[in-house]
Amino acid sequence: MAEESSLSQLFSPSSVAVVGASTNPFSGGYQFTRFLIDHGFKGKLFPVNPAASEILGLKAYRKLTEVPEPNVDYVISCIPADGILPLLDDCSKKNVKLVHLFTARLKETGRDKESKLQSEIVAKARRLGIRILGPNCMGTYYPKLGLSFNHDLPTESGPVGGFFQSGGGAGEFVRYAALRGVRFSKIISFGNASDIDEVELLDYFASDSETRIITSYIEGVKDGRKFARALAQATKKKPVIILKGGRGKAGTKLALSHTASLAGSFKIWQAALKQYGAVMVTTFQELIDQTVAFAFLPAITGRRVFIAGGGGGKSMISADVWEEEGFELPDLSPEFRRKLKDKVPELWDWVRNPIDASLFQGTPVVDINLLEWLSDEGGFDFLVANLTQDDPLTEDIWENFLAANFVQCVTSIKNKGKPVLCVVETAEVSSAEMEKWKWQAIAETRRQIVNQGLAVFPSPDRAARALRRLVDYWTWRENEN
Amino acid sequence: MAEESSLSQLFSPSSVAVVGASTNPFSGGYQFTRFLIDHGFKGKLFPVNPAASEILGLKAYRKLTEVPEPNVDYVISCIPADGILPLLDDCSKKNVKLVHLFTARLKETGRDKESKLQSEIVAKARRLGIRILGPNCMGTYYPKLGLSFNHDLPTESGPVGGFFQSGGGAGEFVRYAALRGVRFSKIISFGNASDIDEVELLDYFASDSETRIITSYIEGVKDGRKFARALAQATKKKPVIILKGGRGKAGTKLALSHTASLAGSFKIWQAALKQYGAVMVTTFQELIDQTVAFAFLPAITGRRVFIAGGGGGKSMISADVWEEEGFELPDLSPEFRRKLKDKVPELWDWVRNPIDASLFQGTPVVDINLLEWLSDEGGFDFLVANLTQDDPLTEDIWENFLAANFVQCVTSIKNKGKPVLCVVETAEVSSAEMEKWKWQAIAETRRQIVNQGLAVFPSPDRAARALRRLVDYWTWRENEN
Repeated sequence: MAEESSLSQLFSPSSVAVVGASTNPFSGGYQFTRFLIDHGFKGKLFPVNPAASEILGLKAYRKLTEVPEPNVDYVISCIPADGILPLLDDCSKKNVKLVHLFTARLKETGRDKESKLQSEIVAKARRLGIRILGPNCMGTYYPKLGLSFNHDLPTESGPVGGFFQSGGGAGEFVRYAALRGVRFSKIISFGNASDIDEVELLDYFASDSETRIITSYIEGVKDGRKFARALAQATKKKPVIILKGGRGKAGTKLALSHTASLAGSFKIWQAALKQYGAVMVTTFQELIDQTVAFAFLPAITGRRVFIAGGGGGKSMISADVWEEEGFELPDLSPEFRRKLKDKVPELWDWVRNPIDASLFQGTPVVDINLLEWLSDEGGFDFLVANLTQDDPLTEDIWENFLAANFVQCVTSIKNKGKPVLCVVETAEVSSAEMEKWKWQAIAETRRQIVNQGLAVFPSPDRAARALRRLVDYWTWRENEN
Repeated sequence: MAEESSLSQLFSPSSVAVVGASTNPFSGGYQFTRFLIDHGFKGKLFPVNPAASEILGLKAYRKLTEVPEPNVDYVISCIPADGILPLLDDCSKKNVKLVHLFTARLKETGRDKESKLQSEIVAKARRLGIRILGPNCMGTYYPKLGLSFNHDLPTESGPVGGFFQSGGGAGEFVRYAALRGVRFSKIISFGNASDIDEVELLDYFASDSETRIITSYIEGVKDGRKFARALAQATKKKPVIILKGGRGKAGTKLALSHTASLAGSFKIWQAALKQYGAVMVTTFQELIDQTVAFAFLPAITGRRVFIAGGGGGKSMISADVWEEEGFELPDLSPEFRRKLKDKVPELWDWVRNPIDASLFQGTPVVDINLLEWLSDEGGFDFLVANLTQDDPLTEDIWENFLAANFVQCVTSIKNKGKPVLCVVETAEVSSAEMEKWKWQAIAETRRQIVNQGLAVFPSPDRAARALRRLVDYWTWRENEN
């Protein structure tokens, strides 16, 4: 608990210095200064550069020790590795608590000299009472404080926390997941994990009251038993989603040169993770899907699903992939069919689960109306609404009738408190193509659904995989407690 | 062979009548007339409607028999099912060769009366020498002639043919695959397959000189042995990609109500398909990926791959998914490292396959340059270029340096005749978000790569799965011949 509260303070600095701040846009020192300015960092910000007097409109200081404050809480180091040992002395003079080393080319080079230097840095920092984040990492994204490790990330907060051994992966995870409505408590990129490591970070997020869902990208763990113990504690409190990188031969070797991690046997990993209730994914896109599922859906523990939307082919493939992930599609009940007889006499006896949109031609209703009626019946654990994109209707009809009706029905189902998710299939459009009405209309419809706080997936198989893991997790939790 | 040449003529009409053409935009009769006008149908077009004198600017005829031509080659029927038997008499008088029944609610309703009517229609058409496409289908997209079954499909032709038991699926397949550069010879939606069926269509596409790759969506086959024989012939000539719908319990039932198909045992299907060299996929997105792979990559039979691009996390996951699909990532050779020593002394000993973009900071080159140098070495079967999207560079640098360099390198590799594919990860952007520089820049970069005739995939796992099937097919072909 001491460690947790300590990290909590470290990640909430009231002043930050960027050492190696620069006016060269290619440099990390420029980028980190820019990130903090653009995200409105709420504390004091001090660029440090031996030559410049001003950087990005801020007064710059030649040395950290020249900063006119007795204390600087947090230092972002963008200088070369051989300057770190002297920098630590300056940090000590300014009572720095945490040094984030964007600085790289240390142990991950695989070279003896650089590995030795990394060890010396950690040892010296420890003697001086300074914690090290990294080296070779992007540091902290904490929107509440305006700390950021990349450009154009959301400035509002949300329930998703995470720790990532890839800075690029962390940044793009935030950027891509944000498009699907996800917002973040804080995300930490921790690189070589020379001091602050995966165990301490997992403990921290498990006890962090701002974090409801934990995400992670991990290449290797230093102490498997400690990590397993931390995991066993964390998963009883909240979902822990783990993307393990370096699962094969090439990845294991690359892990050494990326973050100097020993990737370990993937099979051992997988067994341990499952035993302790971790939610395991295999790609960054799955990590996003899984986060969306936990962020926008309740604790579902059953596997019965009603599916509506899309023509026959889309309905069919949808049914196939949901069943292939272990879900069941119950039949429509005789009572429900009796109600349908009055409303759609053309097809009350004929329509099935999944509900094929193409059957409704010439009737006053569409597929999604049936899903809304079904939401008032029992006999299901959640509902799936496929947007009917595969319909040759003209612009006005598609937008005003089909899409508007879809948004209204799924919002209504959600507002009634019934679990529902949406599938809107993604296309690879350029901005010229985005000007064509159908792509624009699909994209706008998706945005409207996301803005309603609904879980939206880009394909039925990605939705089904994320839901399988979600149901597995909450079922495991039910049995644990 | 008689059947094949017969279908070839049927699909090349010099005149088309839309029976049930309409001014109501909700109706099929309006939509089909519109599709043919908008795609510039090159033959004569006759809307037929008992009441209207003009439809969408064209003179309309009260009855098919009032069309002032001795012959009408092709009829698109958009009238209700109970009007079909009398329509066939009119068709006979006008020497109609093919009736495409968009008309639905026949055998797929599961009702006795409608099933019997479908049989009567087929029997009568056979007596009159008229072929039936459908019922319950969208018919023909043949861009060379300007025949179309949906709005806004490409008007230029390409090498991909196909037959689809879902009209919505067929239309969206064309629309989505077109964004990735795929163009089509012709695509046939054949619905209930009451007359023209999957066997005849497979034979036809196998012998069609305009078609180099065959795609299909099939819910059931009437005669498994005949289909297997046709498949065995076709796969020796060109790739046959099959998306089988109705693989599970719900799908099997739905197949009855969608196209009145007996979906059959999926396990039997799968075994048969593999034996005869078919390329099997499980979702519409995989169908598109697989089509892109065959359309833009040569006959690769090896599994050694060099991968470049993306930071450490993205490289790592990329290596993992490629290895998980059975590919190997060879080490960089000592000779190649020696060459690197002069060019990038900072990391010649350290960089690996996959080539991690983040290592190159501060050097004069980037990851993709190494891939181009590697393309001149031996020791690989194909190359994978991941666009480095996970880089926090600012707009100018990303666009003018990183993205421009990427497009130039992959184009150069392709022009040297070396197999290369690209991975550009798709985001769920709305049109407002598309105005932000990074999404727009990524989308534009993707468009430029697609325009170079390169295979582009939206994620590493989707690329790896498509390539595994491609290599499996060409390896099977090598062993067969």
